[in-house]
Amino acid sequence: MPDSWLDIAPDAQFGPATLPYGVFSTGDDPTTRPGVAIGDQVLELGAAARALDAPFADTVSGPDLDALLAAGRPVWDQVRAAVTAWLTDPAHEAAVRPHLVERASVTLHLPFTVADYVDFYASEHHATNVGRIFRPEQEPLTPNWKHLPIGYHGRSGTVVVSGTDIVRPTGQRKPPTEPVPVFGPSARLDIEAEVGFVVGTPSPMGERVAVDDFADHVFGVFLLNDWSSRDLQAWEYVPLGPFLGKSFATSISPWIVPVSALESARVEQPAQDPEPLPYLKGSQPWGLDLRLEVRLNGHLISNPPFSQMYWTAAQQLAHMTVNGASLRTGDVYASGTVSGPEVAQRGCFLELTWSGKEPLRLPDGTERAFLEDGDEVTITATAPGPEGTRIDFGEVTGRILPAR
Amino acid sequence: MPDSWLDIAPDAQFGPATLPYGVFSTGDDPTTRPGVAIGDQVLELGAAARALDAPFADTVSGPDLDALLAAGRPVWDQVRAAVTAWLTDPAHEAAVRPHLVERASVTLHLPFTVADYVDFYASEHHATNVGRIFRPEQEPLTPNWKHLPIGYHGRSGTVVVSGTDIVRPTGQRKPPTEPVPVFGPSARLDIEAEVGFVVGTPSPMGERVAVDDFADHVFGVFLLNDWSSRDLQAWEYVPLGPFLGKSFATSISPWIVPVSALESARVEQPAQDPEPLPYLKGSQPWGLDLRLEVRLNGHLISNPPFSQMYWTAAQQLAHMTVNGASLRTGDVYASGTVSGPEVAQRGCFLELTWSGKEPLRLPDGTERAFLEDGDEVTITATAPGPEGTRIDFGEVTGRILPAR
Repeated sequence: MPDSWLDIAPDAQFGPATLPYGVFSTGDDPTTRPGVAIGDQVLELGAAARALDAPFADTVSGPDLDALLAAGRPVWDQVRAAVTAWLTDPAHEAAVRPHLVERASVTLHLPFTVADYVDFYASEHHATNVGRIFRPEQEPLTPNWKHLPIGYHGRSGTVVVSGTDIVRPTGQRKPPTEPVPVFGPSARLDIEAEVGFVVGTPSPMGERVAVDDFADHVFGVFLLNDWSSRDLQAWEYVPLGPFLGKSFATSISPWIVPVSALESARVEQPAQDPEPLPYLKGSQPWGLDLRLEVRLNGHLISNPPFSQMYWTAAQQLAHMTVNGASLRTGDVYASGTVSGPEVAQRGCFLELTWSGKEPLRLPDGTERAFLEDGDEVTITATAPGPEGTRIDFGEVTGRILPAR
Repeated sequence: MPDSWLDIAPDAQFGPATLPYGVFSTGDDPTTRPGVAIGDQVLELGAAARALDAPFADTVSGPDLDALLAAGRPVWDQVRAAVTAWLTDPAHEAAVRPHLVERASVTLHLPFTVADYVDFYASEHHATNVGRIFRPEQEPLTPNWKHLPIGYHGRSGTVVVSGTDIVRPTGQRKPPTEPVPVFGPSARLDIEAEVGFVVGTPSPMGERVAVDDFADHVFGVFLLNDWSSRDLQAWEYVPLGPFLGKSFATSISPWIVPVSALESARVEQPAQDPEPLPYLKGSQPWGLDLRLEVRLNGHLISNPPFSQMYWTAAQQLAHMTVNGASLRTGDVYASGTVSGPEVAQRGCFLELTWSGKEPLRLPDGTERAFLEDGDEVTITATAPGPEGTRIDFGEVTGRILPAR
């Protein structure tokens, strides 16, 4: 892994092994445009590509990443190889340096147009805990859970970029003590720490995408907080699944890490028993060793291990299309809450506080069963990069505003 | 209601009371462009607007209805008033006639960009029948059903225009006789006869839309067939709702009937007991007297009455946004299967054949429990218009192709 000619501390975020894509604007120029994060700088991708006569300059000069996503794997590889060369070969420094902007000075935007949004439920630990909490009289895992990656469609119109404030949702909930539902602000507002995937290359209706074609279709990986109202959700979700308990907001991290940056993070997923049907089997491992950290008001409250997910993103893609559903550029799908086997590895308050019965005690002496107004939740992650480097995912953060 | 100067038979489809909007192309000109159906003709909207110097010409000259949808209620009213005048006042005939195209000669397209797609479950008769079939050991209606309009998000990327062939989906299903799921083509492929609504005017995240603001946000109404695989759905839907059992295809009728064409179709909805929460109450009735007809291979199999729906589209809109979820131009939501109290008023095969146990006998001597390859399903509807006229919704149709 060559070093950058930029003066990047060995431990700094976004070294040359990551090179994630985002969309930014500046105070001088409110135009939104694609960028690549490198250390504490952002490379303006379109301007650099034009300066260096790159053949893909038009593809990276739009207001967002949509054209790059649609361009497909060969172009993704070409752009990444070029940007790596520009930032590591000193011969390019003079041409590239004018197109760097201080990362602290930019505003980051939703990096692509979200088409459909699907949320899975792929952590056995999470699904088991939730089953025990929501359906204590039954087996925690439903009979289908180990045969297929359970998922549902969410609301793509309320996918927002990290840093967007989240208004506490209002709606119906039915406390067990009440004969009829009551109306008001959610009293059990939660997070779900997840990993998201964005589709670049589409697929036609009526055809399937194989597990092994994952990297031809999926452009990149990011962090996702699937904000959840547990009281709205509990009252509404039988029989057609979560709706208003989830649809008010989903936050994503602004830097999209290309799948090709994750070669050193690929690991075998946990053993699957029973053996899945053939359409859910691939020849290569797509477990990913992302290590998440969840902070509440700056205080670390959980370390969810993504490597422990029962179903991989490649299996989820194959399942999502096995019925002939098409893929579109910009389709987002997420892992579901990432929870490990340990208490301190759980990815939501529902599990961390066991439905509020065991509140978290924070260093400031306060307790949390669920989120309070003003609380800020930040999810970060890293993964192993090549030759001992580190892949950085940056963060997804959001603060709770009072209900309106 | 003035007559058109066009020679339209009194009983012809698309008289001057309907004037629905669609998007078409012709053999001469493959450009997609907005049109209005009038009798057996289509008025090319942008060309007519330019010829008549209409101030909204740009809004109706794009490749689809997106700009018109985004323009909002005052512009919708202005366009409808102008088109009505053009087609009924003989003074306009000379200017307008050159912009008419034979309806039989045009190709119709998906008329707008679908943003999010939500499907409700608003017929008490349908929900009761489905509850009896899927959960025979329980109360047919879940405890929440009469307190809120149950809904879930569907896949907007597989919403297709009427006439698109539907490939039989493949996937997992678990017959009760098998110990583990089997893989293959769906054996219980079904329709759901529904009414769809498209949002024009967006709303910001964090704010609610009131029941009484329905007509300020919703542009138009159409027919929708929510193709459903009952065997895929039954195996997957607990606990997070329908996913692959629905996501392979949803067909919509190509002509969008403006909400303002439906004044004479507005009726009181069925009485609601218990009384809904205040956010679900409006001051005006939004029941709609649409009379649906469902045909299988040309044979009438059902007459679902939309006036019998328990929850109105105005209540659904208020519910969908009560948690602060935003609306976008192009958001589609659908009623859920329209079923009346009679057997011959049921809107899907699951109910019509009682889960396949009582197959339909067709005039050709064959029977149907669920759809077979080559079957064609067509849903049509009409509603009362002003002064004894009729509002026409045209049709949504689709044919089943074998699994791939």
